[in-house]
Amino acid sequence: MSPEKIRRFSTKDIINLRNPSVVAIGGGTGLSSILRGIKEYTDNITAIVTVGDDGGSSGRLRADMGLLPPGDIRNCILALAEDENLMTDLFNYRFSEGELKGHNFGNLFLAAMDGISYDFYQAIRRTSEVLHIKGQVLPVTLDPMILCAKLENGTIIEGESTIPEVASKEKSKIAEIYLRDSELINPLVAAIEAIEEANRIILGPGSLFTSVICNLLVPRISQAIKNSNALTFWITNLATQVGETTDMTQEEHLKQIQKYLGSENEIDVIIQNNGEVPEEINRRYIEAGQEFIKPLKEAGNSVLLSDDLLLIEGNKLRHKTDRVAELLFNYYLNQNTIKK
Amino acid sequence: MSPEKIRRFSTKDIINLRNPSVVAIGGGTGLSSILRGIKEYTDNITAIVTVGDDGGSSGRLRADMGLLPPGDIRNCILALAEDENLMTDLFNYRFSEGELKGHNFGNLFLAAMDGISYDFYQAIRRTSEVLHIKGQVLPVTLDPMILCAKLENGTIIEGESTIPEVASKEKSKIAEIYLRDSELINPLVAAIEAIEEANRIILGPGSLFTSVICNLLVPRISQAIKNSNALTFWITNLATQVGETTDMTQEEHLKQIQKYLGSENEIDVIIQNNGEVPEEINRRYIEAGQEFIKPLKEAGNSVLLSDDLLLIEGNKLRHKTDRVAELLFNYYLNQNTIKK
Repeated sequence: MSPEKIRRFSTKDIINLRNPSVVAIGGGTGLSSILRGIKEYTDNITAIVTVGDDGGSSGRLRADMGLLPPGDIRNCILALAEDENLMTDLFNYRFSEGELKGHNFGNLFLAAMDGISYDFYQAIRRTSEVLHIKGQVLPVTLDPMILCAKLENGTIIEGESTIPEVASKEKSKIAEIYLRDSELINPLVAAIEAIEEANRIILGPGSLFTSVICNLLVPRISQAIKNSNALTFWITNLATQVGETTDMTQEEHLKQIQKYLGSENEIDVIIQNNGEVPEEINRRYIEAGQEFIKPLKEAGNSVLLSDDLLLIEGNKLRHKTDRVAELLFNYYLNQNTIKK
Repeated sequence: MSPEKIRRFSTKDIINLRNPSVVAIGGGTGLSSILRGIKEYTDNITAIVTVGDDGGSSGRLRADMGLLPPGDIRNCILALAEDENLMTDLFNYRFSEGELKGHNFGNLFLAAMDGISYDFYQAIRRTSEVLHIKGQVLPVTLDPMILCAKLENGTIIEGESTIPEVASKEKSKIAEIYLRDSELINPLVAAIEAIEEANRIILGPGSLFTSVICNLLVPRISQAIKNSNALTFWITNLATQVGETTDMTQEEHLKQIQKYLGSENEIDVIIQNNGEVPEEINRRYIEAGQEFIKPLKEAGNSVLLSDDLLLIEGNKLRHKTDRVAELLFNYYLNQNTIKK
């Protein structure tokens, strides 16, 4: 919704302010890190997670057993689980020897739970119960979702895990991203309902195409976001990613999201970093083909919330998820105190 | 202890009658089935379990990861867990496709728990907590235990899973069974303590050499049984097993147990079946090289408790574990009501 709608809150909305219903859409480590921040503010959280992954342990289980890839789901369940719990430690364990080498135990847990459950959605709910999570984790679809990309040079790439790699090798940008046989992909009804009933919807951070936009390709998801009365936030990435967003500016990121949302007015609030990255780290990123993204100066109808969100872990840039969460929730409660 | 000791119970022993401390020693399906019966009478149960298995899913994990074989442990944990619990269903799940095919999820759970734990014993205790089991399950040792057999024809066989197979092929009986490098094998201290403090100790049912006697080969275990003031029960098998106990009579079974216990007076009570097996089932067993075992008529100093313990499941003979448990516990409380 656009900013002027903010004044039209009902009593119910005011009550919701206390435990607002938040839907975060994405995948990868971006979504799970932001969930850790959000759960400090509300337990009314829905993570809607891409199931397009076909690499690593998830990819092996997908190829072997026809299972939806569990990795992103597992990370979100862990993010919403109690900290320092034995089961969460176990979920994080990765086998390092023999035929199980590389398999993450949490993935095997979800695979076995799928084996004794009606469907993968029930398996996720049961696993979420075992781990006593706050909120819920929903796969964006239960149908086998194969992400494809068309590069500017015309190359077609099928399979999420190979898209950045091939694009990088071909030195060609992603022109378009789509799902194979998208007419056969149905969104999870619970995901549509959660979006339509949300107080706020969060897109990003995370790989632009393979974690965020891939969810918008599932039929009815973009429309549900547009139907919702929620405030829609976009949390921007800190740096470009090789083969996926090489050389892209913040404006270009935004344009892609707007394109796949099918609307230029849907993003109400953009949370972006305006902190400066230390020279040494910047150099390392550039050497690796990545680039630190400069903040937007203005963004049309969207409100810009800019702050120093940089957390440096070793040589890696991360979001200060606690600060991001503060911005997400403060904006609603007390707009005047927020830097714009 | 011998039957005359029964009169020497102290007040503490009388109190223990209400929730007697029971140690059941074995492996395979025999031990786990008997635990299901025992847990209806007491929650003061210790299962002491062989870790000699080197076949199947357990064997793969053992060879791959140096893990102690988890299969028998898993079955005992499940036997003592709450029934109809989601986690127990999950533990029973066996993967049927791809690289995980044949692996039992419970084994993978124990393997992952081992990966995040100090040792396999801690992994078992933590797993037992997750499954809310009654009592405790203890591996007889944490050292890698390799079971060996010498056949009457002189053949030496190394590795539990191949013993019955090779013995059957060679048409030679097991003359002796032993652990490779037994001087390097230490019993789990908690197992020794549990035996010494038990009110009753149960051996069998189960594969005579590869599930029951193999535990007695671990140094200090037999001595601990002899040191204990517990009533010692032997629950006999219903039928012989191919290659392991081919053609052996009940007397011969008993002699083997006495030999490895190092005492002819240690078994206080023998619980044996005196029910008759239906002709059709008998025929099938004989065709498969097995034989229904005839009950003892007398057994020296041991008390004989004989009853119809036969449960026929499909074409398989099983123990009526509820009746076995009744005999185990009634004998203590009210000897006069028991058939001898």
